[in-house]
Amino acid sequence: MAQLIEGNAVIGQSGGPTAVINQSMVGVVQGLLSEGAGSPNNPIKRILGMRHGVRGLTTDQLVDLSEKSHEELEAVAATPSAALGSTRDKPDASYCERIFHACEKHDIRYFFYIGGNDSSDTCRIVNELANKSSYELRCFHVPKTVDNDLPINDHTPGFPSAARFVATAFRVDSLDNESIPGIKINVVMGRHAGFLTAAAGLARDPSGHPDDGPHLICVPEVAFDLDAFCERVAEVYDRLGRCQIAVSEGIQDRDGQSIGAMLIQGDADAHGNVQLSGSGALGDQLSRIIKERLKPRNGNAPRVRADTLGYLQRCWPDASPIDSDEARRSGRYAAKLAASGDLDGSVAIIRTGKGYDGEAYASELDRINLEQVAAQTKHMDLEYMQGDFDISQKFRDYCGPLIGELPTFGRL
Amino acid sequence: MAQLIEGNAVIGQSGGPTAVINQSMVGVVQGLLSEGAGSPNNPIKRILGMRHGVRGLTTDQLVDLSEKSHEELEAVAATPSAALGSTRDKPDASYCERIFHACEKHDIRYFFYIGGNDSSDTCRIVNELANKSSYELRCFHVPKTVDNDLPINDHTPGFPSAARFVATAFRVDSLDNESIPGIKINVVMGRHAGFLTAAAGLARDPSGHPDDGPHLICVPEVAFDLDAFCERVAEVYDRLGRCQIAVSEGIQDRDGQSIGAMLIQGDADAHGNVQLSGSGALGDQLSRIIKERLKPRNGNAPRVRADTLGYLQRCWPDASPIDSDEARRSGRYAAKLAASGDLDGSVAIIRTGKGYDGEAYASELDRINLEQVAAQTKHMDLEYMQGDFDISQKFRDYCGPLIGELPTFGRL
Repeated sequence: MAQLIEGNAVIGQSGGPTAVINQSMVGVVQGLLSEGAGSPNNPIKRILGMRHGVRGLTTDQLVDLSEKSHEELEAVAATPSAALGSTRDKPDASYCERIFHACEKHDIRYFFYIGGNDSSDTCRIVNELANKSSYELRCFHVPKTVDNDLPINDHTPGFPSAARFVATAFRVDSLDNESIPGIKINVVMGRHAGFLTAAAGLARDPSGHPDDGPHLICVPEVAFDLDAFCERVAEVYDRLGRCQIAVSEGIQDRDGQSIGAMLIQGDADAHGNVQLSGSGALGDQLSRIIKERLKPRNGNAPRVRADTLGYLQRCWPDASPIDSDEARRSGRYAAKLAASGDLDGSVAIIRTGKGYDGEAYASELDRINLEQVAAQTKHMDLEYMQGDFDISQKFRDYCGPLIGELPTFGRL
Repeated sequence: MAQLIEGNAVIGQSGGPTAVINQSMVGVVQGLLSEGAGSPNNPIKRILGMRHGVRGLTTDQLVDLSEKSHEELEAVAATPSAALGSTRDKPDASYCERIFHACEKHDIRYFFYIGGNDSSDTCRIVNELANKSSYELRCFHVPKTVDNDLPINDHTPGFPSAARFVATAFRVDSLDNESIPGIKINVVMGRHAGFLTAAAGLARDPSGHPDDGPHLICVPEVAFDLDAFCERVAEVYDRLGRCQIAVSEGIQDRDGQSIGAMLIQGDADAHGNVQLSGSGALGDQLSRIIKERLKPRNGNAPRVRADTLGYLQRCWPDASPIDSDEARRSGRYAAKLAASGDLDGSVAIIRTGKGYDGEAYASELDRINLEQVAAQTKHMDLEYMQGDFDISQKFRDYCGPLIGELPTFGRL
């Protein structure tokens, strides 16, 4: 165990906000405080927060979190979105230089960064540069992403709450679609991984009505074939007079080309990603195509509507209880790693209790190397799918326990 | 008081579903049962439900609601969307003939129709044709619309719950927008009336942060001037580095031309309405325009995102408690009118307790003539606006008490 070096800690939030990212931030603060941070003889002095991630760190926009009351921190923990502010900046070498200068200037020796793929890579780069220089900086990454696409982690904080929103949305939207029948597309977040779109399948209560939606689930991991898709839509529509469809914003063809990018003109962010969220274009284009394809069948285009579930997926104030708990624990665990003398690392969630087949759900946290998670994207295993357009029981077993109880409904 | 005629009752749900339209349906059933319907000497015999409104009535798709258990009815009442199924059919003369034949066939003498403008007009036409013919049919309209645009009613069942969703959505989305700043448009339902869009303004907690969104609110009642709009967006963006905007799907220019219809190619429903819901086109077009207009200012287009809140607005399973209660009471009241011998009418919600300035909120129900509500559209009074882009305190007083407590959040 390395000896603790004296200095301040700083916490940042990065990437898209979630319903529970503030739980992780407060977890780090409370974890450091419970290790004695700020006490006269403790090596960890003040606990600072970066405003808008590394952007705030390099522009001296810091907030002292040591001074916040317990009540204040608990209120923030229960608040969706990133209370410190977030950023999509991806530091290059010169940016990282500025981060070091800021760390020196503010006597920062403990660096906590809460985020997803890109954010963990920022953390890794900062850590490597610190290792190469003579500046002793201990970097810890705390996982967060509604996309659920970090490796090693059974799942990532933020995902269960987003999945809860998506499943709830599909469940009520299926009732809506049943009351005024038609074809309904709901576009779900997830640029590269289909976990969140697959969660739409949990809207179907296994003990409920067999005709409940969603009737088709399209994830990026299954090559999107427009002909096969339209055929399946027509088949369901002929049988039920309606069809509810879950489409990932990240669906791609068999060459890996994004269907959304092909259909829409978007702008790219600092990471070179084309804008898929915050636009209704993919859903609208698929609507148009379905109308055109199905019209010749009986002369009338079917009623097709598309909603893009949008940013509410990541910040709806009805977090999964398991998610809130694990996000908090992840933050505390990172603080404990730092106080235990670990030099760096990322926190990973390991499932230790299945949550089905009579076994209670349980999870533990583990330290993994930053390199194991940085800039890596985990795709959804195809065993979570049954055919091209539905989830499997295995996904139901995997995801169901994470999202908490969904509202159940009566029917005539 | 007219003498009650012997026969069956039928209940239908029509138009867009809401979070509480099943409360009204169950209210009619329970109201009729408590008046003795189905008892040996009661003139009202069976209580039937139309599947998909008048469409189901004319095709013998009826369900016997008298046989449902109390538990079953209560479960359905708490369920969003229209449990009987809904329809957008607007009966013409020959359609109404078929309705009468169906009433005769099923010995229906009490006709309850839960819906909005178009639905109340259906109810009026059916009632008039019944009056002209020798068939004695008693028609009652029970109000329902998230648009809140029925005359005389202080507000309509369905609106408070939709307003609750919209206000909650803007409150969390404002936190999201604050964490990763940019320009964010959220398009809100309401073809002709701005009430639901105005409800976005309730997202701002009066005791909260003065810079919270929404920063602009655009309703159909205020002529939409693209130049003035873009100027205001730029002003807010320059000041705060972000701007959250509530836009009604029904915004129109000073000639009454729909901005949405001008920007998008939609299809029309049976009432001749252009499709505005179930598409992201209006938000996407406004995004594009804002980017183009604001780009020359510093050479870079700002980050602009648009979400269309979509069908979740009308069926999210978190109803306003006042709304659930009033929807139920409206149904019961219609049943009572029928059992009291009234020949026809519509139920109206009258506010009897302000709900602010220390006065508790209270409402009563009243019978109004079908002609007073049928096919009428109430627009939002301009006194509910302050300038062109914000709500007034008067709207806050009016709408605030209806939506129930919103989640409150901590901030650093």
